[in-house]
Amino acid sequence: MKNLIKFFVSLLLLASCTTKSPTLSELPKSETDPLPSWNEGTSKSVIIDFVTKTTTSGNSDFKPEADRIAVFDNDGTLWAEQPMYFQLAYAIDFIKKESENHPEWKKKEPFKSLIEDDIKHVMEGGEKALFEIMMVSHAGMTSDEFQKSVSDWLNSATHPKTGKPYNQMIYQPMVELLEYLRANGYKTFIVSGGGIDFMRVWAENAYAIPPYQVIGSSIKSKYEIVDGMPVITKLPELNFIDDKAGKPVGIYQHIGKRPILAVGNSDGDYEMLKYVTTGEGARLGMFIHHTDSIREFAYDRDSHIGKLLKGLDDAPQNNWLIVDMKSDWNKVFNFK
Amino acid sequence: MKNLIKFFVSLLLLASCTTKSPTLSELPKSETDPLPSWNEGTSKSVIIDFVTKTTTSGNSDFKPEADRIAVFDNDGTLWAEQPMYFQLAYAIDFIKKESENHPEWKKKEPFKSLIEDDIKHVMEGGEKALFEIMMVSHAGMTSDEFQKSVSDWLNSATHPKTGKPYNQMIYQPMVELLEYLRANGYKTFIVSGGGIDFMRVWAENAYAIPPYQVIGSSIKSKYEIVDGMPVITKLPELNFIDDKAGKPVGIYQHIGKRPILAVGNSDGDYEMLKYVTTGEGARLGMFIHHTDSIREFAYDRDSHIGKLLKGLDDAPQNNWLIVDMKSDWNKVFNFK
Repeated sequence: MKNLIKFFVSLLLLASCTTKSPTLSELPKSETDPLPSWNEGTSKSVIIDFVTKTTTSGNSDFKPEADRIAVFDNDGTLWAEQPMYFQLAYAIDFIKKESENHPEWKKKEPFKSLIEDDIKHVMEGGEKALFEIMMVSHAGMTSDEFQKSVSDWLNSATHPKTGKPYNQMIYQPMVELLEYLRANGYKTFIVSGGGIDFMRVWAENAYAIPPYQVIGSSIKSKYEIVDGMPVITKLPELNFIDDKAGKPVGIYQHIGKRPILAVGNSDGDYEMLKYVTTGEGARLGMFIHHTDSIREFAYDRDSHIGKLLKGLDDAPQNNWLIVDMKSDWNKVFNFK
Repeated sequence: MKNLIKFFVSLLLLASCTTKSPTLSELPKSETDPLPSWNEGTSKSVIIDFVTKTTTSGNSDFKPEADRIAVFDNDGTLWAEQPMYFQLAYAIDFIKKESENHPEWKKKEPFKSLIEDDIKHVMEGGEKALFEIMMVSHAGMTSDEFQKSVSDWLNSATHPKTGKPYNQMIYQPMVELLEYLRANGYKTFIVSGGGIDFMRVWAENAYAIPPYQVIGSSIKSKYEIVDGMPVITKLPELNFIDDKAGKPVGIYQHIGKRPILAVGNSDGDYEMLKYVTTGEGARLGMFIHHTDSIREFAYDRDSHIGKLLKGLDDAPQNNWLIVDMKSDWNKVFNFK
């Protein structure tokens, strides 16, 4: 059940932003920089070279559009994940709000500690506590009710460090990269340990990635008729953990072919990068390295969230690109 | 375990065709009939009216492109399913071919009867027999090995009635409908009880539907390193049955939003049509009714495969369109 912690942790990292990049495809390529928030340097060159060679007809690394599939982790790769996965922040706020209707929670752990803001004590409850929090905040609702609950939260909650709505905590350079890839015939997918249904609420506005291109961890659901209306009800039962070795499996289940580009930021993405970068032909794997303590957060090897150790050690031998947020990005967020 | 039979039956209905419709989007709409294989009449009018009103800006039934999602059953809806699901034909051929490497099968049921072409006796073995056939023919391989096995079969096997490759047994009017929808900003998905991995081998060539827009029944799989290469291995364990009430769940898991158009041909599609056609705004549900014993097969209420009983009875009250293959289609197949 160690996976449950990963699941919940990954369940806790989502939000949305309505920012959209300018549509590059409308402009001649030579007249615009497709990645303005990326500084000139190795990282930017490697990315542009890869996209150019895989989309240039006649090049030995050319790929037809059907094979131009790129996968992205979400927490720490497309949006921030500190000081806690955003999906956990949602779950905590949900339970606090719902506690008015559940007086029994004031006497029952882990809810008692959670309501009293004693998160340390909640965490001491281990997987069992996290599982109870997850099920109370993600199951027992219809799909529409859950969607509304997440939407309402995004419209009211703010990040503790920046004071901005969570759905503005997305990385502008990554939004540009997604748009640049799509303008070159790539299909972009999210492959996250976070909850698939949580992400789908806001990912289309944030990244222009539609729900059917979002892959994540999930709980089971069932179809039923309620008051004459067919609905999907979310069940308190684990379905799939889309983390570590689960990521290539999630890719196989949802996409059905091996992508050629993968981006992650933690060892939870190691197997995904390995799977994507060892197929035939040109392939690109990269880790976003959190090196900027001023504009974002600096962490890697010893971090509880987003630990990047094996990935850093093995990047050279796998020819993976390490993107240094501090030096490679001239802008991190694009707050309104 | 009754579901296992459904799963296997649905596992048995796939193949491919490289035919592609002319790209309607390149021609002015007024100069071409988007559905030339459909006779003029109610069915064709209902379809064209629905697509027109949902894509005409200012119309009260207008839908933005993000909501234009159409789902199609496969067996009996996009390609034929008689005299047995094509995926079962694949499984039987696979086992016969592999029996050379498995002398023990000659003494072991259900393989003994299968090798001796005594399909009746195989079927008497019930779910257990079908499960064994399915697992031997679909599990224990890597994803690449399975894909090659299905491809090789499609290149050699032929349909018992028409003598054509199975991947030419697709309905030309439905290929035109898929293309017409896509030309109008719709995303087209397959939602089949058949095996997801079997369909993905050939669906892109047959229908221009990419693997990530194919939803179906599945067995579990795992990620592992074999001889230094990361691979996906298919396991002899059921993962999901995408049939009846499983179809709306499969749609929720893979697509993440309620489609507005659904097409099926059997009571296995009943819940999908109900789910799709009871949401807000304009919606269209239709059943393909197999009425043409000469050009195809005629069956519905009492058929073992593709039984359509409740769907026919309830179509009027649900305002579902019944497409009559004999009178609505001037062409069924488009054999080369």
